[in-house]
Amino acid sequence: MASLFHRHRTLLEQAVAALGDRGFWSPFPEVPSGKFYGETAREDGQTAYQARLGAAFALPGHPESTRVGAEVSPYGPALGITYPSADAATLVAASESASSAWAAAAPDTRVGLLLEALKRLNAMSFEMGNAVMHTTGQAFPMAFQAGGPHAQDRGLEAVATAWLEMSRAPARAVWEKPQGKADPIVIEKHWRIVPRGVALAIGCQTFPTWNSYPGIFASLATGNSVIVKPHPGATLPLALTVAVLRDLLAEEGFPRDVVLLAADSAEAPVTKDLVRHPAIRIVDYTGSNAFGAWVRENAGEALVYTEEAGVNSIVIAGVDAFAAMCANVAFSLSLYSGQMCTAPQDIFVPWDGIDTDEGRKSFDEVAAGIADAVDQLLADPDRAAGVAGAIANPATIDRVADARSLGRVVRDSAPLAGGRSATPLIVAVDAADEAAYGEERFGPIAFVIAVADADDGIARAAALAMHKGAITAALYDTDEARILRAADAFARAGANLSVNLTGNIFVNQSAAFSDFHVTGLNPSGNASLTDSAFVAGRFARAMWRRPVVA
Amino acid sequence: MASLFHRHRTLLEQAVAALGDRGFWSPFPEVPSGKFYGETAREDGQTAYQARLGAAFALPGHPESTRVGAEVSPYGPALGITYPSADAATLVAASESASSAWAAAAPDTRVGLLLEALKRLNAMSFEMGNAVMHTTGQAFPMAFQAGGPHAQDRGLEAVATAWLEMSRAPARAVWEKPQGKADPIVIEKHWRIVPRGVALAIGCQTFPTWNSYPGIFASLATGNSVIVKPHPGATLPLALTVAVLRDLLAEEGFPRDVVLLAADSAEAPVTKDLVRHPAIRIVDYTGSNAFGAWVRENAGEALVYTEEAGVNSIVIAGVDAFAAMCANVAFSLSLYSGQMCTAPQDIFVPWDGIDTDEGRKSFDEVAAGIADAVDQLLADPDRAAGVAGAIANPATIDRVADARSLGRVVRDSAPLAGGRSATPLIVAVDAADEAAYGEERFGPIAFVIAVADADDGIARAAALAMHKGAITAALYDTDEARILRAADAFARAGANLSVNLTGNIFVNQSAAFSDFHVTGLNPSGNASLTDSAFVAGRFARAMWRRPVVA
Repeated sequence: MASLFHRHRTLLEQAVAALGDRGFWSPFPEVPSGKFYGETAREDGQTAYQARLGAAFALPGHPESTRVGAEVSPYGPALGITYPSADAATLVAASESASSAWAAAAPDTRVGLLLEALKRLNAMSFEMGNAVMHTTGQAFPMAFQAGGPHAQDRGLEAVATAWLEMSRAPARAVWEKPQGKADPIVIEKHWRIVPRGVALAIGCQTFPTWNSYPGIFASLATGNSVIVKPHPGATLPLALTVAVLRDLLAEEGFPRDVVLLAADSAEAPVTKDLVRHPAIRIVDYTGSNAFGAWVRENAGEALVYTEEAGVNSIVIAGVDAFAAMCANVAFSLSLYSGQMCTAPQDIFVPWDGIDTDEGRKSFDEVAAGIADAVDQLLADPDRAAGVAGAIANPATIDRVADARSLGRVVRDSAPLAGGRSATPLIVAVDAADEAAYGEERFGPIAFVIAVADADDGIARAAALAMHKGAITAALYDTDEARILRAADAFARAGANLSVNLTGNIFVNQSAAFSDFHVTGLNPSGNASLTDSAFVAGRFARAMWRRPVVA
Repeated sequence: MASLFHRHRTLLEQAVAALGDRGFWSPFPEVPSGKFYGETAREDGQTAYQARLGAAFALPGHPESTRVGAEVSPYGPALGITYPSADAATLVAASESASSAWAAAAPDTRVGLLLEALKRLNAMSFEMGNAVMHTTGQAFPMAFQAGGPHAQDRGLEAVATAWLEMSRAPARAVWEKPQGKADPIVIEKHWRIVPRGVALAIGCQTFPTWNSYPGIFASLATGNSVIVKPHPGATLPLALTVAVLRDLLAEEGFPRDVVLLAADSAEAPVTKDLVRHPAIRIVDYTGSNAFGAWVRENAGEALVYTEEAGVNSIVIAGVDAFAAMCANVAFSLSLYSGQMCTAPQDIFVPWDGIDTDEGRKSFDEVAAGIADAVDQLLADPDRAAGVAGAIANPATIDRVADARSLGRVVRDSAPLAGGRSATPLIVAVDAADEAAYGEERFGPIAFVIAVADADDGIARAAALAMHKGAITAALYDTDEARILRAADAFARAGANLSVNLTGNIFVNQSAAFSDFHVTGLNPSGNASLTDSAFVAGRFARAMWRRPVVA
């Protein structure tokens, strides 16, 4: 069974090297092209996806007391797929009985299997792209990238980090303590990697694979069995993932139930029962702060790793490329209709305007510049659909409607041609209106906020990050000293800062092997993808030792 | 200020190498000899300790609303030392206001300062030995070793692990993403190590330095300010430590309050207020399971690292050196009168006896062999005092008295000549008497338990470890297959196993840089000294990035 490890060893070594370099690296092509994925990959993926619709999803040997499934594409049609479902006690019992064999496997056996799984998942990225598109509402190009290769990158990153952690100390050592003139004491020591137990990964609707792969792959690599709890609205992408893993486990002689799918329904949710189950020793969670707080309170002795929500800000202090800035911000607001955890919501602009390469721009001119850039970006219906996609959750549409009354509408939201959709709403408010902009309003809702000056904007944005959470922050500025002050302020607040982004790079983007996603230092989450803290606690080392007989 | 780092760089590199090798390594001589510490070190240390007695302990600039101090040596005299004391809010405010400068220091500056602190603490190991002896009751040789060089080893291990973790990713990288035929996107990225905030280290009475140094030094190395909460009965060893750190901080231009002492009294305890304070982001705790559970429940969002209590077992299945085994077990039971967290309590022996090099030994003969070996070890009063020391807490004496009625007394406990003392009580019970042996009875109390056979003993000991906690386990066996089965069973239960120890090495001993102390997998604690999980969560990385201007 070591052959999978051997086969993928170079990939693993490259990944480990990339973790140390933090430059650009990815083994999984992000371009949905036949050049990388094979001439017929696009159609094959489409066909495979279509074949899933209206059918029972096959997970051979999976615990099943009933079938559930109520996914409806944000683009319209119901998927009609059913998944096996069982109660928490049944799932945990199945996971526990599968766990010993997996825990006893050598780390390289586990890692080799997981690398093979990622390669297989990569090969089916077109099918995954369709699955992600029709559960999250992401436009296909993004669904392919974020749900496919970028998620696989994050999974690989977790496997490589876990491998590195497990390799930090040897499996055997000889401890020889001098005793002066007497013979030394010589002890042989042996260490086993002992996983924590059964892990639970709770996925979200908007990024079912990207946000869940790190926890799933980190737990598996370190020897834990994993119960994957998908969002009921985005089950298919994780069901596909679970199917790949279960098949591969069986091929390699492990119990399939090392990985289980906890599909449930709105009527009979299973998440709370799983979180509260004493055998669950690790919980990975992506979702709201409110349920995140519940998970953290109720998970008992389990380790809990979360990505929750926050209020991401942009501060515009001054800029030497005004049009490019407006275009860049417009794209960040429009991409997947603001439904990324990294999307900006609050744009702080000095009330008396900013200096730009186009001369002094008033507060209103800055707001209008961004609004116009959104209009321009979304003017072509096809491009608009390709950028903004659809709205995952109907509640988001209501939220946009409510937000219109929170200030002066600079740009109104409107539906696009296809599916449940809404373009960015941009509302101008004053710094004092914190009730409007000071909490997360998930979706295509942005505020342009008039502040005293750039430092006031930085201070308010950093304070929001610290107290309400923020994953990202952005700054446009030409004053180097203030840029460095802002870097300090946002670092203290635990938000990653992007400065003067223009062109084809956006504050929303977080690249595996380079960007640590979330710092864990503010309410937007307690974990960071993927640092060693995210992985190291999932296992421990247990030793046995004895004297070496001379 | 980088000079301290430069001065101690070789030491750091050796420590980092030792962490990877896990063989024997220590830079701090464990022998209390003038050969290592200087001709006059012993008397100088004694004199320095004497000078502390009956006086106000000086901590210049430390917050102080009152003075507290009620330490009484287990060997008799009250220490009469008073320490500055302040309420939780005052301490946290002082820690917070000192924290920015420390957080902003470069990792090598912090690490250099901490290495220098460890060197200074090492130089005063004789004074520390006296301080530890007269607060914990450890005999001087052990107080010197465990309170001095071995604690320093654990501190150094934490610093080296923290250094390694902080060095895992660069402070700067260039991310260059190809764009086909267009120019690549080139982004410069900068990372700051951001500490979690204010850390609290709650010490215990029996090992005030050894158990607290890992948390204190790991938190400091990663940029957190630290409030050191000593046990009211063992304040001096940590006050000495805090004084060294505060002086050094001042010398190097940092606020002294980066390290604070939270001395309190039984009448006005401060620990709960500190644990519940929202600004406390890290808690290191050593102590009882009951208070440990309270800490874990009440620490809010703080990371909590604990070493709690457990029931350590020995299983005697068979032995080819009966006398040496009895002597080894006797020493483990007698050393510091069973007041080590690693000391065995439960000795499982097949009811129908075992095979030995001295022929078949009945259950009673095994129990008697161990009892006799204790008698022999403690026959000489000087040696007895040097091994068993004194009893830290009067409640332990009561516990010994109560334990006599729990079974058939094989060896009775008795006081020694000097101080509050008690030699090991050994009580024989049946496997069914789990009410007697199935919970921790801290102090010189041991049970010899008749089990069906060796496998039954292993199963019972491992189950106790899993459910009640255990840091150590020991096995005497001549059956290789059973030894490996036991290694699996105790690994699953999260207890480190020592097999067939005889001579000058004992199950109680845990060596820095080689043995991971506690696994974190059972109720005896949730952390492991010192793996990367113990350190990595104490800080995060925050990034700022911007396009590289061509």
